[in-house]
Amino acid sequence: MDIHAPHQEQHLESSDMIRDIVIGMSDGLTVPFALAAGLSGAVNSSGIVVTAGIAEIVAGSIAMGLGGFLAGRTEADHYTSELRREYEEVERVPEREKEEVKEVFAEFGLSKKLQDEIAEELAKDKDKWVDFMMRYELGLEKPAAGRATRSAITIGISYIIGGIIPLSPYFFVADSTRALYYSCVITMICLFIFGYFKSKVTGQPAISGAFKVLVIGALAAGAAFAMAKLIDGK
Amino acid sequence: MDIHAPHQEQHLESSDMIRDIVIGMSDGLTVPFALAAGLSGAVNSSGIVVTAGIAEIVAGSIAMGLGGFLAGRTEADHYTSELRREYEEVERVPEREKEEVKEVFAEFGLSKKLQDEIAEELAKDKDKWVDFMMRYELGLEKPAAGRATRSAITIGISYIIGGIIPLSPYFFVADSTRALYYSCVITMICLFIFGYFKSKVTGQPAISGAFKVLVIGALAAGAAFAMAKLIDGK
Repeated sequence: MDIHAPHQEQHLESSDMIRDIVIGMSDGLTVPFALAAGLSGAVNSSGIVVTAGIAEIVAGSIAMGLGGFLAGRTEADHYTSELRREYEEVERVPEREKEEVKEVFAEFGLSKKLQDEIAEELAKDKDKWVDFMMRYELGLEKPAAGRATRSAITIGISYIIGGIIPLSPYFFVADSTRALYYSCVITMICLFIFGYFKSKVTGQPAISGAFKVLVIGALAAGAAFAMAKLIDGK
Repeated sequence: MDIHAPHQEQHLESSDMIRDIVIGMSDGLTVPFALAAGLSGAVNSSGIVVTAGIAEIVAGSIAMGLGGFLAGRTEADHYTSELRREYEEVERVPEREKEEVKEVFAEFGLSKKLQDEIAEELAKDKDKWVDFMMRYELGLEKPAAGRATRSAITIGISYIIGGIIPLSPYFFVADSTRALYYSCVITMICLFIFGYFKSKVTGQPAISGAFKVLVIGALAAGAAFAMAKLIDGK
């Protein structure tokens, strides 16, 4: 199976992208929606809701996008430094590294004889030996090149798209209470659709997944609304 | 090394907790800070900033906490369903599963003879065979029990603690522009300290890590402030 590895990598890459869209959009649909709902309970003008909502979307997309970028960079840096350390160790203390290979297989109950043979044979090719240590001793996969930048942009844009949806009625309806009704209807529909597709692509039951996403959004918005009413003593 | 496995597991568990604190607190310190800064540029009363800020913190902690809970549950469900499938496959198509074991080792350049021996010996103990497939073919680790609930609570509380810090000056200073000055000073200091410790525990260079976190917070707040000013046309 020669195509196994590239196929798997491609699969991982597109699932990284889907994961980033899901991360950005689930927070984007939920938090600006809940913030707008909360403010609608406390102020009567859609103007303030729009200002606060846009400020939140800008802040959230930068925080999440840059956060994603740095997380990706940190992952790549970590991989590189561990890789260098493993190469150094197979040069400097090869016997100890062989012991570590044997430990991996001892855990699965392989015989001492087989453990020794595996360690000896693996040690013949340093690149593959180090690759083995990286993946099976340390559990580290080589991060895709350019992953951090792509991740930042995907998360940031998904957050903005998600956030504009619940905010859109407030652009057109001056009375914030009326705008909230429209916002609830539109956002609930979008949360359900988003939850449905999110569950589909992650291999979960789609309808129950859609309801889960819907309930989180509704709970967050309801709690923010109640809290804002409470603070304002209305 | 008998203590190897439990030690590693404990290590993973505490690093899960630290990861959850980092997830909750970095967004908690950044987004409510930026939202408050944005609103301070558009309104003159700290009252609205406090209402919006609290609504955001409530919404954000619920969205992130419940999000963490569901992510943890999904991970656990996925593990369980894949585990069942692997057990079924080693019963139903053992030869194909043995081929998959061999493929893992073929990738590391082990000889055909050794591949066969490993596959045969691993197949003697079904539990260990399945465990091997789960970890090294599918790359899945058994999630810690109760992880989802712990994760939700840790992320939610970290978000609330992080969010209260930038908001606190607005409770005491009625003029939102003055409150913003205090908020900037307090939050910048906290972002730096948080970034420092975050980098320490994740093994990154601490000072440059602290500056990265600080810059994200400042950029998000600056952009939100500028955008809110722009919308309000002031």
